[in-house]
Amino acid sequence: MGELELIAAIETALADRSGRLVRWIGDDAAVTRARPYAVTSIDTLVDGVHFRRATHAPRDIGWKALATALSDLAAMGGDAGEAYVSVVLPGDLDEPLELVRGMEELAGDYGVTIAGGDVVRGPVLVLTVAVTGWADAEAELVGRDGARPGDLVAVTGELGGSEAGRRLLEAGEAGTPELVARHIRPRPRLAEGRALAAAGVSAMIDLSDGLATDAGHVAARSGVELRVRLEDVPRPAGVTPEEAATGGDDYELLVTVPPASRETAAAAVPLTWIGEVSAGGGLVLLGPEGPVRGLRGYEHP
Amino acid sequence: MGELELIAAIETALADRSGRLVRWIGDDAAVTRARPYAVTSIDTLVDGVHFRRATHAPRDIGWKALATALSDLAAMGGDAGEAYVSVVLPGDLDEPLELVRGMEELAGDYGVTIAGGDVVRGPVLVLTVAVTGWADAEAELVGRDGARPGDLVAVTGELGGSEAGRRLLEAGEAGTPELVARHIRPRPRLAEGRALAAAGVSAMIDLSDGLATDAGHVAARSGVELRVRLEDVPRPAGVTPEEAATGGDDYELLVTVPPASRETAAAAVPLTWIGEVSAGGGLVLLGPEGPVRGLRGYEHP
Repeated sequence: MGELELIAAIETALADRSGRLVRWIGDDAAVTRARPYAVTSIDTLVDGVHFRRATHAPRDIGWKALATALSDLAAMGGDAGEAYVSVVLPGDLDEPLELVRGMEELAGDYGVTIAGGDVVRGPVLVLTVAVTGWADAEAELVGRDGARPGDLVAVTGELGGSEAGRRLLEAGEAGTPELVARHIRPRPRLAEGRALAAAGVSAMIDLSDGLATDAGHVAARSGVELRVRLEDVPRPAGVTPEEAATGGDDYELLVTVPPASRETAAAAVPLTWIGEVSAGGGLVLLGPEGPVRGLRGYEHP
Repeated sequence: MGELELIAAIETALADRSGRLVRWIGDDAAVTRARPYAVTSIDTLVDGVHFRRATHAPRDIGWKALATALSDLAAMGGDAGEAYVSVVLPGDLDEPLELVRGMEELAGDYGVTIAGGDVVRGPVLVLTVAVTGWADAEAELVGRDGARPGDLVAVTGELGGSEAGRRLLEAGEAGTPELVARHIRPRPRLAEGRALAAAGVSAMIDLSDGLATDAGHVAARSGVELRVRLEDVPRPAGVTPEEAATGGDDYELLVTVPPASRETAAAAVPLTWIGEVSAGGGLVLLGPEGPVRGLRGYEHP
């Protein structure tokens, strides 16, 4: 398929779900009617680093690239709007349109519109997705810097499942499809992020690099200490507390919650309470016998 | 330099020029106060395809990546706002911060803020830049689809200089630094794009792939024929009309102008009038002896 033919096919594959698009594919840039606050993030996945074509079908790669980017909007409490997609396409990728179809599947589930993009040739498959979300007021959004001593620490979902799935895939074992699915088709917690922001959480982050790394970002940006009880970290069967704290690509949300908002937050989104915020600095992971040192989040090769 | 160290250095290298940023580097996503219309584009440059590290210093590569993306905003008449930058960094690039410094040089010249980004490892240097511009009304913006029979065709600046510079660079000849500079440090025509949109041009596009390709996009999207006189295409000394029509990476603007707006447009921005719009379809390049067939814009390797 030639480049122009591919771009024409991509245009046909995309749906406008926003109701805000004035101009999109086919012009030099897309034009959208804005809401008062724009929330924007950009994320890149590289073959051999963030996924492997040997274990990931093109449709799954497209899904994952968009999911990863949307997860950042979820972590702010933003309302996902448009995605802009760039693909570096190696000559040996037979079904480039499948990448777009995978993104469109996810976009359809979340009401997101792929509003623009770029397709270029190159030696290795690289997908970059910039996403824009919207908010009507600054107070609707939550950063990493609001955790305060006395707040509680909670997470959505279960952790470590994606990394367990990745290892199964690499080992060629399809025995636990549920774990493999968590790795292949992560779901950004957009509705959960908005609900938690509305419930008054003080800080929020998505768990892309693993709790042991990402919870540290909240501690650093907020200037506080996060104390997390490893045994309480929710995880699928067969995953150890250490694996749950270090595995990446779960795309669940970690929040800090002022005590007064605890009930509201728990009523809005199923949460597991895993720790507390105190004065000091950094992340302390607590095992049965005290602080566990040396645990780090997942690092890509 | 480690990844976290690099990200910290990047944060230090960036300046907030927008006055609209609420949150930026260090959170999951950047937050900006929006204006009524957002104009967004994404562009990717790959080493060995769009530039070569052998001939382009990291600072120039950074400049070019941002310039390429901003040129799309220029072509809409948008007011450039923020850039979001993703870099795939190979292990042998010694000065990754130089990429950001080159972008910041250009961003400083145009009042643009680099508001977010992603740095990942990979086998080849890839830069992706998503840019957002703003407008207060839809009528401030111009697409590719507004050309009408009877309109005139004009371009800003000179064409073919960047490709001439690229050939000099590849041949190892630094004899004409002015041409080399056009290739290495293109300048997006943001002020010109806004002024031309305000002057009532009917269609506009930036000349990134060469006039022979890009003028065809305007013809196709507008459902008209563009007739361009090759001899009238402005070009630097030593560049032939055919080279001026086919060379890429000039980042000048091509506009179609209703006759009633001709004087206003010419007073707003120096233009060269190179042709007319007529009923029909496609681009016709006219030589001294009639239509010249087979000319195509620059195609990356």
